Amino acid sequence: MRNLLMKVNYDGTHYDGFQTQPQGNTIQDKLEHAILHLTGETLKITGSGRTDAGVHAYGQPFNFITSSQIPLERWCLALNARLPQDIVVTEAWEVPLSFHSRRGAKRKTYRYTINGNRFPDPFQRRWQHHHPMRLDIPAMEQGLAGLLGTHDYTSFASRKSTKTSHVRTIFEARLEVDRSMCRPGSSDQGVIHTYITGSGFLQHMVRIIMGTLMQVGQGKISADRIPVILAACDRAAAGPTAVSKGLALWSVEYDENEN
Amino acid sequence: MRNLLMKVNYDGTHYDGFQTQPQGNTIQDKLEHAILHLTGETLKITGSGRTDAGVHAYGQPFNFITSSQIPLERWCLALNARLPQDIVVTEAWEVPLSFHSRRGAKRKTYRYTINGNRFPDPFQRRWQHHHPMRLDIPAMEQGLAGLLGTHDYTSFASRKSTKTSHVRTIFEARLEVDRSMCRPGSSDQGVIHTYITGSGFLQHMVRIIMGTLMQVGQGKISADRIPVILAACDRAAAGPTAVSKGLALWSVEYDENEN
Repeated sequence: MRNLLMKVNYDGTHYDGFQTQPQGNTIQDKLEHAILHLTGETLKITGSGRTDAGVHAYGQPFNFITSSQIPLERWCLALNARLPQDIVVTEAWEVPLSFHSRRGAKRKTYRYTINGNRFPDPFQRRWQHHHPMRLDIPAMEQGLAGLLGTHDYTSFASRKSTKTSHVRTIFEARLEVDRSMCRPGSSDQGVIHTYITGSGFLQHMVRIIMGTLMQVGQGKISADRIPVILAACDRAAAGPTAVSKGLALWSVEYDENEN
Repeated sequence: MRNLLMKVNYDGTHYDGFQTQPQGNTIQDKLEHAILHLTGETLKITGSGRTDAGVHAYGQPFNFITSSQIPLERWCLALNARLPQDIVVTEAWEVPLSFHSRRGAKRKTYRYTINGNRFPDPFQRRWQHHHPMRLDIPAMEQGLAGLLGTHDYTSFASRKSTKTSHVRTIFEARLEVDRSMCRPGSSDQGVIHTYITGSGFLQHMVRIIMGTLMQVGQGKISADRIPVILAACDRAAAGPTAVSKGLALWSVEYDENEN
């Protein structure tokens, strides 16, 4: 028996998120189906976490225990040949049998992408939230800084969250503005990527943070309000949940000695 | 009457090229339909040139004569509201009645994109040709240099070309390698963009150049052969026609005093 750790990139547009669902239209279902097709084994994979319907991922880790003798270097090509084109397995390692890609995850980074240009980008529109009205980037950066640290993030969690504790740590967060696709001489604001790295995230947490930050950028709420919203521990204190298509799981990190 | 010049971005994946066809599934047909819907005018637009089925464009110019009184600044939003999401009009100007977006074009640049990484990119796959085998980039650069200048490009034109002269000028050509999406420690070669700027291009010309250059990159033909292939004035001397999805019209330039 071997424990295999792999990474998968996916365009989540047409899927109901990572974790298996009865309808079967999830990344996990597609991966398990490809493994069954390849090895004949009906098994359950473990993902590094859930993603919402429509959310994307760059290098999301997952692992599974297999008795297949297929050499490590053949897995990616063999699985990709059995997967839809919008799901691509890119790396595979053998890890200790004790390795668990969700429990072992120490830091996760999500990226949320806003197209702040006047017109949508036909090439990137499936993974950008189009927001053509001007956003106050320094105010958003200030608001984001107010979320750093270890807090009870109940204000930024779905009311449906079933977790017993809403305490999490946000280690780092930053905005990056890419102006390479702005039309010369226009008032285009560029493509705004927000990267948020934390110990873990509650259901809808990054999307509620982004929905609230956009209200800061629009001047509807002051950046100073963020710590107040956080302290309220009340979902009603925060802004709306931003659309899922702008969100991508960007990276997941483990302790060096765990894989 | 006004002559309006506009620019359009499109993801050409689902279209039969720019120029109108009886089946109506072209960029021109969609634009003319949107103009009819907006103004009630049945008119013909003039594009800066044709593109093949499946080819994309960033800022392709087109113009048309209209009697509509709609203010210039409202056109883009109004047309975009009437266009499919993969076609986006980004700019509009009024130009002299004599301006013609095809005849006036002085320099056109195409970009061809090869994903040289081991695995396809689920996000960019619709506009990248995936070529996971190693390419000799310096040899491709040398081959490309052999195409510069004013020549009869019959070897690099579709046999179906109906043009009386195949003499064109390639002003500039260069390769650019983007390694930002390579997997760390992998043998990934990066995303290879080839930019070719010329006075005009024959049918399939950029795609045949790229199909030939890839053979140079694969070591199947030597870069020194390019001038020989060019001198042959025979389509059979060149390599295959590269797939259309990797190609995008990148820019079209006019004389300063023409618009």
